[in-house]
Amino acid sequence: MSAPRFGAIESGGTKFVCLVGSAPDRIEAEIRFPTGEPAPTLARAIAFFEERAAETGPLDAVGIASFGPLELRPGHAKFGHLSATPKPGWSGVDVAGPVAAALGVPVGIDTDVNGAALGEGRWGAAQGLDTYVYLTVGTGIGGGAVIGGKVVSGLVHTEMGHLTVPRIDGDAFPGSCPFHGDCWEGLAGGEAMAARWGTPAEELTGGALREALRLEAAYLAAGLRNIVYTTAPQRIVIGGGVAELPGLFSLLRAELSAALAGYPGLPEHAAEDFVVPARLGRLAGPAGGLVLAAEAATAARQRSRPGAGPSEGTYA
Amino acid sequence: MSAPRFGAIESGGTKFVCLVGSAPDRIEAEIRFPTGEPAPTLARAIAFFEERAAETGPLDAVGIASFGPLELRPGHAKFGHLSATPKPGWSGVDVAGPVAAALGVPVGIDTDVNGAALGEGRWGAAQGLDTYVYLTVGTGIGGGAVIGGKVVSGLVHTEMGHLTVPRIDGDAFPGSCPFHGDCWEGLAGGEAMAARWGTPAEELTGGALREALRLEAAYLAAGLRNIVYTTAPQRIVIGGGVAELPGLFSLLRAELSAALAGYPGLPEHAAEDFVVPARLGRLAGPAGGLVLAAEAATAARQRSRPGAGPSEGTYA
Repeated sequence: MSAPRFGAIESGGTKFVCLVGSAPDRIEAEIRFPTGEPAPTLARAIAFFEERAAETGPLDAVGIASFGPLELRPGHAKFGHLSATPKPGWSGVDVAGPVAAALGVPVGIDTDVNGAALGEGRWGAAQGLDTYVYLTVGTGIGGGAVIGGKVVSGLVHTEMGHLTVPRIDGDAFPGSCPFHGDCWEGLAGGEAMAARWGTPAEELTGGALREALRLEAAYLAAGLRNIVYTTAPQRIVIGGGVAELPGLFSLLRAELSAALAGYPGLPEHAAEDFVVPARLGRLAGPAGGLVLAAEAATAARQRSRPGAGPSEGTYA
Repeated sequence: MSAPRFGAIESGGTKFVCLVGSAPDRIEAEIRFPTGEPAPTLARAIAFFEERAAETGPLDAVGIASFGPLELRPGHAKFGHLSATPKPGWSGVDVAGPVAAALGVPVGIDTDVNGAALGEGRWGAAQGLDTYVYLTVGTGIGGGAVIGGKVVSGLVHTEMGHLTVPRIDGDAFPGSCPFHGDCWEGLAGGEAMAARWGTPAEELTGGALREALRLEAAYLAAGLRNIVYTTAPQRIVIGGGVAELPGLFSLLRAELSAALAGYPGLPEHAAEDFVVPARLGRLAGPAGGLVLAAEAATAARQRSRPGAGPSEGTYA
């Protein structure tokens, strides 16, 4: 039996990344294109996979790591559809269905951050752990939790960017979140940083950079404290553009220790390997698509056994 | 085969509750006594179970829902021990080990709030759900999350009382938490309420009660928002003395809707059955002990099968 070949889609608000392969270092083809209207954008992704299948053989499954919010409750009539999203034209769009219908293979779908969390767990900075959080701090903030080996997804997926955190003394920036104003993302996402300092974070230098990093580390630590106390992760992996600012991680570890204030007193929370940079970089999302594809393929095999129940949570 | 008979311990900072039975409405014996020094207190619990076993037959397993913090990592050398606790004499005490050694039956252990979460899931206000949170708002605040049917327990158990939430305008109370000052528990636990208003919450009346309830609902909603966005529960069940203040739940539902501010826009978050009172009352903890006992018995049976691996997470 040959190794499985999967398709992966990272469906982002500005671009789509589609690839075929089995791991981040075993990618046989990849395309990237801007996210346009829903129908032609999904059609372009489908055409890519159809071409690959025609040239090099059928795919075993496809996984989609998509921007949200998404309906992900197994068995729900709108499973795999976007719900109300600020992205024009995409509210209510069925993302997974057309891909499954066109390609005739199992299709798995989850949010982009949950996909990245799975990718970092399989091949990146969370390998070997079963309870961890992946956080992206880019334009906005998003987080996915894996607990006991499974992505947390109850009534809805997690929305960690919208945590509430106390305002830091002296910070008068009103916040940039259209829903909450000064939620975590509204105070500490890249868009908030650019608005607060009048310059994108990656263009700051000298004293302005130091001041921005100090405030950013304190805000990030406040949110991480809430994540630590609610989900008890073994590790927190952070990706995204803001996470690449020089010196941020050492400031952040110190601020998190201060925020936990010795409670519950575990040395692990202060260790260098508790809050770490993501390792897969821009491949985290597509890598998540590969994990979701593998899970969809496994689920489809289990459903095809005699006596298996009705399908749930994936398309087959 | 007769129905299983379990022992349950709710090990609290002020009292121990021990019972024998199989469900909250099938309890054959129960004792309560003040929590004293560790050795005689545990000996008293053990003696109760030994007497019951001698009179009415052997127990199948014992479950302990204990105050914390506890070491609960499977396979850890200190599994089942308390870590640093403010309760004098109890730091580092092995709670589960002596019970297992004396009684020679499988023993399960988890925190009191995690036990209560399991009890409410099996027999109370979270029946039929697999992803929910149980919160107790009494002297302090504690929360346990069940996700995908399992209690969240990664590096450590959850510590939801120590979330950080923004201070509400005009509230100058410094907070009562010995670690964090104005964490969630430090601002909104029963001890904080009594200190802020100069009177225990349950003794407030008239305008003072209305003002206290308004502030309490707003603080509780801020923490619930963080729980919603990090753990995505299908329901939040709240017990404890503060939760029994008249009119709190309707205020709290309104404040939570305001705090979520329409994001992610699910009608379920505003429904009457999303934030609900606990149903098992003072039996929630011991009921959790019964669930933990049943889990320990099941785990022991699985380990005794040919080819099973070494024991993890429970005593047998």
